[in-house]
Amino acid sequence: MRALRFHGKGDLRIEDVPEPEVAPGLVKIKVEWCGICGTDLHEYQGGPILIPPPGAPHPLTGETLPVVMGHEFTGRVEEIGEGVTGLRVGDPVIVEPNIRDNTCHQCRHGSYNLCPSGGFYGLSGWGGGLAEYAVIDARNLYVLPPSVPTDVGVLIDPLVVAWQAMIDSGYRPGQSALIAGAGPIGLALLLTLKASGARWVGISEIADARKRQALAFGADAVLDPTVDDVTAEVRAATGGLGAHVSFDASGLPATISTCISAVRPKGTAFNVAIWEEPVELDINTLVTGGKRLAATLGFANVHPSVIAALDDGRIKPADMITARTSLDEVVDHGFDELLRNKDQHIKIIVQP
Amino acid sequence: MRALRFHGKGDLRIEDVPEPEVAPGLVKIKVEWCGICGTDLHEYQGGPILIPPPGAPHPLTGETLPVVMGHEFTGRVEEIGEGVTGLRVGDPVIVEPNIRDNTCHQCRHGSYNLCPSGGFYGLSGWGGGLAEYAVIDARNLYVLPPSVPTDVGVLIDPLVVAWQAMIDSGYRPGQSALIAGAGPIGLALLLTLKASGARWVGISEIADARKRQALAFGADAVLDPTVDDVTAEVRAATGGLGAHVSFDASGLPATISTCISAVRPKGTAFNVAIWEEPVELDINTLVTGGKRLAATLGFANVHPSVIAALDDGRIKPADMITARTSLDEVVDHGFDELLRNKDQHIKIIVQP
Repeated sequence: MRALRFHGKGDLRIEDVPEPEVAPGLVKIKVEWCGICGTDLHEYQGGPILIPPPGAPHPLTGETLPVVMGHEFTGRVEEIGEGVTGLRVGDPVIVEPNIRDNTCHQCRHGSYNLCPSGGFYGLSGWGGGLAEYAVIDARNLYVLPPSVPTDVGVLIDPLVVAWQAMIDSGYRPGQSALIAGAGPIGLALLLTLKASGARWVGISEIADARKRQALAFGADAVLDPTVDDVTAEVRAATGGLGAHVSFDASGLPATISTCISAVRPKGTAFNVAIWEEPVELDINTLVTGGKRLAATLGFANVHPSVIAALDDGRIKPADMITARTSLDEVVDHGFDELLRNKDQHIKIIVQP
Repeated sequence: MRALRFHGKGDLRIEDVPEPEVAPGLVKIKVEWCGICGTDLHEYQGGPILIPPPGAPHPLTGETLPVVMGHEFTGRVEEIGEGVTGLRVGDPVIVEPNIRDNTCHQCRHGSYNLCPSGGFYGLSGWGGGLAEYAVIDARNLYVLPPSVPTDVGVLIDPLVVAWQAMIDSGYRPGQSALIAGAGPIGLALLLTLKASGARWVGISEIADARKRQALAFGADAVLDPTVDDVTAEVRAATGGLGAHVSFDASGLPATISTCISAVRPKGTAFNVAIWEEPVELDINTLVTGGKRLAATLGFANVHPSVIAALDDGRIKPADMITARTSLDEVVDHGFDELLRNKDQHIKIIVQP
């Protein structure tokens, strides 16, 4: 079958690879759509980062590069392994990409996103979504309702990242929030918070296309940090106090400090970014306000909440898809297009 | 009356100042004992930091330096202002040093330690404990039970800092903790956590005298970061997972990163230090473990809990007092002695 494999920094190849075979507990799916994630771009530009390099195989998959990429994907059930229940051939499914050992303390306590040997389909081995077929652990599949087509289903991935961040931030319905950055994760946070009873959600962004999408998705304020004093504007909109919670979906020194200053005393600044290097942080900005800087990785047990919100229309994310391409053209029309015209795009999805 | 006043960096003077007069809502106390705090040393060595400098009076007291120092103090009620109830002349009292406006959002919601115009007796004006007398808002006084003499009562101040940090960290009884630094705050945290049902409390420290005191106060492990791999030792003592919570009572780049690495996934590293400059922080260390870095300032509504723990013997802090001196000798035998022989001392207390 055809698949996109990562061979090293800047080296993505469309190749013929063996079609994966089903086994007990596993399910073979025919991929319908796969999104390109910021993490994929990081690997392309500067990897291997999460992808296991030669000599350091992933502890669970045992694989090193080249690996099939793509971890935001939907498909149809093609073949069902022995012992799997609750699925039928032809079912439309979304893949939860976490690979975990299911035996560690975190896995046993419901936080499998923090499994110390964890990984991801599409990064750590065991195949991925930028291929015609994938074989996935049955535990990682959720059936999509008829209301969620498989192209829109791809957007569940940034939405579960956002939903997990919302939960772990301590956000409670009726509160106010600032989001730094209106890329896929920032916009997913906006949709998630607006669907969860937020009183006021502001978003800071510099790119025009993303500002427009944030307004279309219901942002109460779109602030441009090159023009606006973001902290002052957030305070003015929140009775002088600052937001209850903020989310850094940009991961820049300026955005993390704004996220801290823009929350009220006892507020939480939540990091949703991966950092390429350490940042200079003034810890006294946490002290004087009794504030917290928190973070998490991935998601666990939130797919059902997000799927239900798409099903009943509380979240309508389809406009996040800004382009579609094919597997054969994914490097030029997907990865390179995102790097060339980053600010014009939110999510590019790929049909293998 | 005699008082110690701060005139600027390195400039502490014992002077004759007017005896303060009682007024409605206020209470005049004769000071019995006053502790010297790390904050006082910071002011002496590098101030004015919290003390209002010339030209920038404190918003509530209207004062600038010189100010009377000392914010950890006990005394006896000498004279009671109009409208004050619940106190009698001669009552032994501990002063809660927070000055606050009582009208802001934080004050109205019980977090007066985060009042944006807040300050402290002994730093911001309105007198302090390194003087024969002080006049204090009646709301800031707690009567000491007969079991707590006024010298030991001075130790309530580091203990309320520790108690507030314990509460704000999310610590719950039965959990494990690492404390970085066995100075007054670190030891107060140790006593507080051991009195609050902690399963295991480790403490990291390099000075021998402080290590010994930590053992005497019941630390389950005393680790020396110049010899031990603190994170590895904490994990070994906590089932391989790491502590539930950690407290940085040192405020060094190495201690804050150890406090993050030594907590388990979803754990909280709590900063109890004031920082002189920004620190390089690798935010990914929060991301991969779903961890939090939190902090607070001062204390609010925790004096009754600490006083009760001293009264019934759950906390026995008297050995934290390592020397006693008089007001006349406080600069040489107090401030300078702490700077000369920091590692030999925990708390020096002063009798005006």
